[in-house]
Amino acid sequence: MTTAEMEQARRELVVMAMAMVGRKGKEIDRAELAAEAGLSRARVEAIFPEQDDLFDAIAEHWYADDITTMEDVVASDLPIKRKFYEFYARRFSRDRARYLKDPSIYALYCELGEAKFERVRGYIDLADHYLTELIAQAQDEGYFAGLEIDRALTLINQMMVCYTSPQMMMIIEPRLSEEKLASIIDTTFAGLSGAVGTCQGTSHINAA
Amino acid sequence: MTTAEMEQARRELVVMAMAMVGRKGKEIDRAELAAEAGLSRARVEAIFPEQDDLFDAIAEHWYADDITTMEDVVASDLPIKRKFYEFYARRFSRDRARYLKDPSIYALYCELGEAKFERVRGYIDLADHYLTELIAQAQDEGYFAGLEIDRALTLINQMMVCYTSPQMMMIIEPRLSEEKLASIIDTTFAGLSGAVGTCQGTSHINAA
Repeated sequence: MTTAEMEQARRELVVMAMAMVGRKGKEIDRAELAAEAGLSRARVEAIFPEQDDLFDAIAEHWYADDITTMEDVVASDLPIKRKFYEFYARRFSRDRARYLKDPSIYALYCELGEAKFERVRGYIDLADHYLTELIAQAQDEGYFAGLEIDRALTLINQMMVCYTSPQMMMIIEPRLSEEKLASIIDTTFAGLSGAVGTCQGTSHINAA
Repeated sequence: MTTAEMEQARRELVVMAMAMVGRKGKEIDRAELAAEAGLSRARVEAIFPEQDDLFDAIAEHWYADDITTMEDVVASDLPIKRKFYEFYARRFSRDRARYLKDPSIYALYCELGEAKFERVRGYIDLADHYLTELIAQAQDEGYFAGLEIDRALTLINQMMVCYTSPQMMMIIEPRLSEEKLASIIDTTFAGLSGAVGTCQGTSHINAA
């Protein structure tokens, strides 16, 4: 096979593997995939030398659109607040559609991802990388003043977690919406800074 | 038994049941509890007529300190931002200690709670009730202007979810801290309002 043929075969097998996961409701191995595709095991193993290579290819497929979205948004000419919104909203909307289409298959993929977290960590890190670029741009425009960029990153990640975490999707999807996401982003732009707050204090409290 | 003796026996059995859960790493039933306590099954069933009554008693014990904390904070003479901070920080610190003491037992309790969510929903609703009181007080002082109280409630719940959700505790505990919690509360007070934001817009984006 040429490299292009190999790539094509790989893509087709990934799509087939994900259809099988959806049908069977469980992770599948290369032997099952070979049987389904009518290929020899040797052929499938030439494309996925280890079971984890099949897992990686599925993860790559799962995250591919998200990566394109993040690249597009970062490279766009939108005002910075709009970039933040699109950065989250596009991925959230797609992920919600995926969840609503079949919550139990969605849960299965989340479980597989959690079990092999070290293999999907790169995608989380990539989202942090792009978000860092957006934060730097926002700070250039005067937002999030007086905050170290890593500090802004962790605070924003925490405030936005309902719209990025598959676990939260599974627990509170009916309460999530693009409008609320927009309000949280607006709140972050209006309120997040390194200014010392007044909410932490002594731990002793008295009755009024 | 007098009512007081019944209450005392109930409390002792709950503490014993939770110690057994911690030791065995699984839910226990009334028969196991009776054997452990050296009591007849009839005696234990007089106190917990159904298995769910034992579950409810354990949930009550699990949440008791949180309820006291929320009541104390709402009734205190602290400034409103400090109330918000204590409302979250005290429960978060206690819950983190419980998690760090034994993550797998913590996970087990979360699983039990999820499986019988309708039986613990009252505690979630109670937290919303107290938070609503705090939001009303904050609005009296000019914060969160122009927002319906229920809208403020859902937005604040979402922004704070890292500090209230057991699932998030299990996933990102090392990234959570009282200082970050304080920053998120300060951000909320500084930025959350009903003002129309500028982050939502057309869905079309162009490359810069």
